[in-house]
Amino acid sequence: MHLAPRIAHIAGTDGDGWGIYYRTREMIRAGERVLNLTIGEHDVKTDAAILTAMHGAAMAGHTGYTFGAGLPELRAAIAGRVQARTGVATRAENIVVTPGGQSALFSAHMALLDRGDTGLYCAPFYPTYPGTIRATGAEAVAVATRSSHDFQPEAAAILAAASGARTLLINSPNNPTGVIYGRGTLEGIAGAVREADLWLISDEVYDTQVWESAHLSPRALPGMAERTVVIGSMSKSHAMTGSRLGWVVAPEAVVEAITLLSTVTTYGVPAFIQHAALHALAQGEGFEATIADPFRRRREIAARALAGSQAIRAIPSAGAMYVMLDIRATGLSGNAFAERLLEEERIAVMPGESFGAPAAGHCRVAMTIPDEDFAEAMARLAGFADRLLP
Amino acid sequence: MHLAPRIAHIAGTDGDGWGIYYRTREMIRAGERVLNLTIGEHDVKTDAAILTAMHGAAMAGHTGYTFGAGLPELRAAIAGRVQARTGVATRAENIVVTPGGQSALFSAHMALLDRGDTGLYCAPFYPTYPGTIRATGAEAVAVATRSSHDFQPEAAAILAAASGARTLLINSPNNPTGVIYGRGTLEGIAGAVREADLWLISDEVYDTQVWESAHLSPRALPGMAERTVVIGSMSKSHAMTGSRLGWVVAPEAVVEAITLLSTVTTYGVPAFIQHAALHALAQGEGFEATIADPFRRRREIAARALAGSQAIRAIPSAGAMYVMLDIRATGLSGNAFAERLLEEERIAVMPGESFGAPAAGHCRVAMTIPDEDFAEAMARLAGFADRLLP
Repeated sequence: MHLAPRIAHIAGTDGDGWGIYYRTREMIRAGERVLNLTIGEHDVKTDAAILTAMHGAAMAGHTGYTFGAGLPELRAAIAGRVQARTGVATRAENIVVTPGGQSALFSAHMALLDRGDTGLYCAPFYPTYPGTIRATGAEAVAVATRSSHDFQPEAAAILAAASGARTLLINSPNNPTGVIYGRGTLEGIAGAVREADLWLISDEVYDTQVWESAHLSPRALPGMAERTVVIGSMSKSHAMTGSRLGWVVAPEAVVEAITLLSTVTTYGVPAFIQHAALHALAQGEGFEATIADPFRRRREIAARALAGSQAIRAIPSAGAMYVMLDIRATGLSGNAFAERLLEEERIAVMPGESFGAPAAGHCRVAMTIPDEDFAEAMARLAGFADRLLP
Repeated sequence: MHLAPRIAHIAGTDGDGWGIYYRTREMIRAGERVLNLTIGEHDVKTDAAILTAMHGAAMAGHTGYTFGAGLPELRAAIAGRVQARTGVATRAENIVVTPGGQSALFSAHMALLDRGDTGLYCAPFYPTYPGTIRATGAEAVAVATRSSHDFQPEAAAILAAASGARTLLINSPNNPTGVIYGRGTLEGIAGAVREADLWLISDEVYDTQVWESAHLSPRALPGMAERTVVIGSMSKSHAMTGSRLGWVVAPEAVVEAITLLSTVTTYGVPAFIQHAALHALAQGEGFEATIADPFRRRREIAARALAGSQAIRAIPSAGAMYVMLDIRATGLSGNAFAERLLEEERIAVMPGESFGAPAAGHCRVAMTIPDEDFAEAMARLAGFADRLLP
């Protein structure tokens, strides 16, 4: 029987090297000790107080339909937080709550792209990006960034790809590179987006994990609020990955379009989860810093472990849970390096090739295991790489 | 700035008369007593034991990512339940868990329809149906059913609309009509679906609310399992509307397609909600009967109240939470009848026109208020209608 062509189209051909990820899961299931640096998720569970707030809301009767753009008080809380963090005037009417950041990404692209359009994204990329764009029926076109340029997007590359495009998706702090786009980079992006008359979709789900200077949202740049759609989420900032609570910040017409779309895609987000998010947001920046701190510490652990390495260049990581290692001096591909590292050292990292061609010859390290294990993993990884040098 | 054409396309032009629904909400908010028969949702909350199971799972650490087709134990439990209820061999591999029945409907259509295709649905229709089909880029074409035929779909009407179609969406027990499709109807549908080589998407979310004979799933008819996709949900059977937990039962290729799609649309369903569903399903048929019983009682209340009416013909309601009233003898449209009923009696019903042209001159009564209020509403509604007779 016939399936919609979009299904084969979603899978696409980008990304390679996920064998490591699945093999690692199997080895761990079989009881082997593997230092697993492939997982983009905290090594802590959601805070008990947040779960207790969720239960309280459920027991208080918040168990019915909640279709629409989200609970008014949650939309207002998110708008207030966005305004406080970015300085951009933001009202509840600029917010639509979604069941997770991925749903926010999908909804934003569904509202802005249709078949025959092109959606741009930057490579290296978070693995769902091209499929998300393709699920709308649009073509997904990568804008390559360069290791030698610390994977910062360049305006010329965006403009070169912009023919027929309606959207550009960026992500800072970045998964997989750990890079933060500085003001210069963002101004270049904003200029290209205005010149090519694109929507900018800015995935800022790591905005509380910033180790140098401060998070800058491109929505705050002159003339950008009316053409920028920001993706937010409780997943990374509050260790609520499994609660599936995200949002879109956008001009009202986009919020209304996504709200209409939600009546046929999801029909709302559980009210008890929205109340849990309200509780979590009310904990303020101190709580968010507590969730982010392990990655701040481990970034320093990684820097110390790699400081003396001849074989590895770490891309300057300024945010998120990741550090990207350029291992081309070893002469190996990212895939081959990761395969041998897993085989010989029982350390699992993601080959850069999993995130697109520009990250070939690199590996992504997720800093998501306890500090002591992480320090051991990085020291052994550095030693392994240096022994590979000719 | 440009929005995707699909957004305007979703809204479409079908359905009319939602003014009543919104006016009623406003009147209630303003403190007026309105007997509100417009809401398709139980007048009870989700059972506390289910919520406590959810909290237990959350506190036990089920708070992380759960992408994929659903927890293996929940897929197995749903498969076992489907097999026990329908007699059709069903494995966990035939199940994909979704964040609610609407998400299951959307995912099924996204997997089977693409731009240029046509998706069929029966009118009168649940209001999200045409927009769900259109969100995929396909055309949504209604197959009209007739009041005089108790709104049972007819094979000839399906075949007449089938040119270019890939899917047919049906719903039994039916919202808005309360009708159950009997074996003869389903065999006629199955024959037409096979003849036109369509997928049958069978929305069976009301399958525990059956007041006459037993629920029959078209997936159980000869040769239909391989071309039928069943939509299921915890919403109606377990009063868990706000938990957003649904599923698709389908051939493995469709399950795999929807699972792939979920990586870019939702990225999984909260594990603690999946555990709550597991707990709820383990309560068995006795619990489900308790949730369904109020509607069984109120259906009888409605029948008694309407028995002597000269103005109203009730479509024989055999399931779900609804009864559809043919009020054409009053000379009014459904819209006009509902407007005057709200104005003069402070009783809110949905005009048939909200569910498509075949229900013009009808009104949908949702049996979702306490028995005593419901009895009062039905008696006053019958008296109101009879006073309208010439």
